[in-house]
Amino acid sequence: MIRPGGTIGILGGGQLGRMLTLAALRYGLKVHVFAPEADSPAFDAAAERTCAPYEDEAALTRFARSVEAVTFEHENVPRRTAEIVGRHAPLHPGAAALATAQDRLAEKTFVAGLDLPTAPVRAVASEAEFAEAVAIVGRPAVLKTRRFGYDGKGQVLVEADTDLSQAWGTLWGAPCILEGYVPFESEVSVVAARTATGEFAAYDLCANEHRDHILSMTRVPAGVSPETEQEAVAVARRIAEALDYVGVLAVEMFLVGKHVVVNEIAPRVHNSGHWTIEGARTSQFEQHVRAVCGWPLGSARRLGRAEMRNLVGDDVETWPGVLAEPGAHLHLYGKADARPGRKMGHVTRVEPD
Amino acid sequence: MIRPGGTIGILGGGQLGRMLTLAALRYGLKVHVFAPEADSPAFDAAAERTCAPYEDEAALTRFARSVEAVTFEHENVPRRTAEIVGRHAPLHPGAAALATAQDRLAEKTFVAGLDLPTAPVRAVASEAEFAEAVAIVGRPAVLKTRRFGYDGKGQVLVEADTDLSQAWGTLWGAPCILEGYVPFESEVSVVAARTATGEFAAYDLCANEHRDHILSMTRVPAGVSPETEQEAVAVARRIAEALDYVGVLAVEMFLVGKHVVVNEIAPRVHNSGHWTIEGARTSQFEQHVRAVCGWPLGSARRLGRAEMRNLVGDDVETWPGVLAEPGAHLHLYGKADARPGRKMGHVTRVEPD
Repeated sequence: MIRPGGTIGILGGGQLGRMLTLAALRYGLKVHVFAPEADSPAFDAAAERTCAPYEDEAALTRFARSVEAVTFEHENVPRRTAEIVGRHAPLHPGAAALATAQDRLAEKTFVAGLDLPTAPVRAVASEAEFAEAVAIVGRPAVLKTRRFGYDGKGQVLVEADTDLSQAWGTLWGAPCILEGYVPFESEVSVVAARTATGEFAAYDLCANEHRDHILSMTRVPAGVSPETEQEAVAVARRIAEALDYVGVLAVEMFLVGKHVVVNEIAPRVHNSGHWTIEGARTSQFEQHVRAVCGWPLGSARRLGRAEMRNLVGDDVETWPGVLAEPGAHLHLYGKADARPGRKMGHVTRVEPD
Repeated sequence: MIRPGGTIGILGGGQLGRMLTLAALRYGLKVHVFAPEADSPAFDAAAERTCAPYEDEAALTRFARSVEAVTFEHENVPRRTAEIVGRHAPLHPGAAALATAQDRLAEKTFVAGLDLPTAPVRAVASEAEFAEAVAIVGRPAVLKTRRFGYDGKGQVLVEADTDLSQAWGTLWGAPCILEGYVPFESEVSVVAARTATGEFAAYDLCANEHRDHILSMTRVPAGVSPETEQEAVAVARRIAEALDYVGVLAVEMFLVGKHVVVNEIAPRVHNSGHWTIEGARTSQFEQHVRAVCGWPLGSARRLGRAEMRNLVGDDVETWPGVLAEPGAHLHLYGKADARPGRKMGHVTRVEPD
C-alpha cells in the first residue's frame, strides 16, 4: 500500500494524465509524469517530469525507480516500455491488460473467449487476406489497424461499393482486423474500478454520442432498462476479473435491442467518465488513484443527472459563455493549439434527479 | 482578462496555494508558485516554482514578469514584497487589502471606521502603554501582536489575575494591540468573492469550532436565523467594497445574541471555506481564480449540509478510515512532518439537505 506522501508515476502526459495528477495531489501524493512530448498538459501539474521517448531505457529506469507504482493514461504505451518499467515498480493495470487492450485482435479474441458478445472479426495482414476476410465477414464491415487506433483513427468503413484495394492502401499496410458491422441503436460505456483484492465498483451506465468518431457527449443515466444496465455492468466486471485488473477501465459497448455488444476496452480512465468529477461521490480519477495505491475504492454513487460535453477544436472558444453559466463546470486542459479534432476541454452539468 | 493557457503567480506555498493551484489547473491555467520554503506543498502542483526569500528583489521581479497576475495565499507577505511584485504584474487582492489585513491595528481601525461592530482596541508599544490600555479596556482582554498572528499565535489572554509584566514579556516586545474580550456564543465566518467590476457572491454562513485556537470544524448551514445570516453577509460585503477587494476573502465574526461582531479579515481563501470544494457549485479556490483572472464569478450555491473537519497533527493518521468511509472526501496536503498543531489535511462530508 502506498502512503500519502508517496509518489506515483504516470506514463503519458495528456489530459487524462493531467486529471489523474490533480486527483493524486488531492490525496497528498506526488506525481512523476513520463511523456515524450515537451508540451504535455500533465507536465504543468506534476512535481516531477521526464520528457523522453518511450524507448529510452535509462530514462524509464530512472523514472520507475523514483516512484512507488506506475500507471498509464493511454494504451499505446509500447509493451517493451511497460516491461522495463515493470522491472523496477509495480505497474497497474498490469502488462496483460495493456497487451490485450492495445491490440484489437487480442482484445476481440479475449472478449469472444469469455463468451461475451462482440463483433465477428478476422485478422488481416495483406491485401489478399483482406479480400478473403470481406468475403467471409460480409459488407458492411470495418477495417481497423490492430494498434494505435483512437477517436476513429486507423479505421475504414467497407461498404457495398468500397474499392478494397484503395481501402487497404489508406492504412499503409499496417496489420489489421476486419470487423463485422454491428447495426447498433446507440453507444454506451461502463466505467468501473477494480482493486487488487477484487473489490469492484461501477459507475452508472453512460450513454455516449460521437461526432466524426470523437466522443461528443455523455449522459448519465443512460435511459436504458435496469436489466440492460445490469447486463452491461456484469460484462465489464467479467472483463475486469478475467484481466485481474487493477484500476479504472472503460468498456465501450453497442446497444442492440435490449442487449449489449462489446466494442472496445480502454484500460484506463476514460472520456465518458469525466462527468464523475462533479457527478459522482468519487471521481474516476480519484478511484483510479485509490486502486493504484492499494486503497479501498470510494463510493461510485451518482449525485444527479449528469451531462458531459467535450470541447473539441474551436469549441474551446466558447469558454467565456460556459464560465458565465451557473452550474456549468468548465475543464480546460491547457493545450495551446486548438487543432480540429483535438480535445481541448469539457463541460459538465449536473442537475438533481 | 487572463485567457486559459495564461500563468498566474501565487506568493506562498502552503495548502491554500496548493488548492488554488489545483483549481487554476482545472481551468487550463499554468501556475508559478513563489515561496521561501523548499518543501512547500504547493510546489508539488505548480508548473513553475521559485524558492527564494520574500526579500529577494531579483527573484521577485523574474517571478512577476513570468506571470499575468499575482495573488497570495497568506497575509504575511511583506508590504515591500507586494510592492516589488506589483510593479510588474497586477496584484489581486491589492496592496491596500493586504496592508489592512496584516496589521491588527489597521484592521480594527478600518472596521470601526466603517461603523461595523468590532471589539474595542488600543495600540500598545511598550509595557507602560500595555498597563494603561488594560486600565482603559478592562479585563478580560487579549494582547495580540499587530502582525504575523494566525491560529492563536501571538496572543495572550489577560485575565483578572494575569501578571502584566509577564504577559508583555511573552510577546518579545513586538508592537501589539489590546483588544477587549467579546463574550461570544459562537464563531462564524463569511467566505465571499468580489470581482474588479463589483460582482459579489457569498457562500452560506459557516459555523466554526476551534480547538487550541486552531479551526477544528466548520458546519454549513450555520444554524442561525436568516436575519443574522443576512447581517453577516452585509458586513462582509461592506468590507469587501470598502477595500475595493478582488478575490475571495473571509470575515471571521463572533456571534453575540442575534448580531455579529467582526473579529478578523482574511484577505485570501480560508480554511472555513474548504467545504465548498464538494459542498458548493463553485469552490472558493475556483472562485478566487475567476476573480483574479477577471472572469465572472461562479454560483456559490450550496449542494447540501456540509461538515469540514481539519486533520491537525496526528489526526492525519486516521486517513485509512476516512478513505474507507463512503461519502467522506479526504484531502491531504502532502506535508511530510505531522507536527502538533500543523494542518495536515481535512475531511468534508456533504449530505442532502
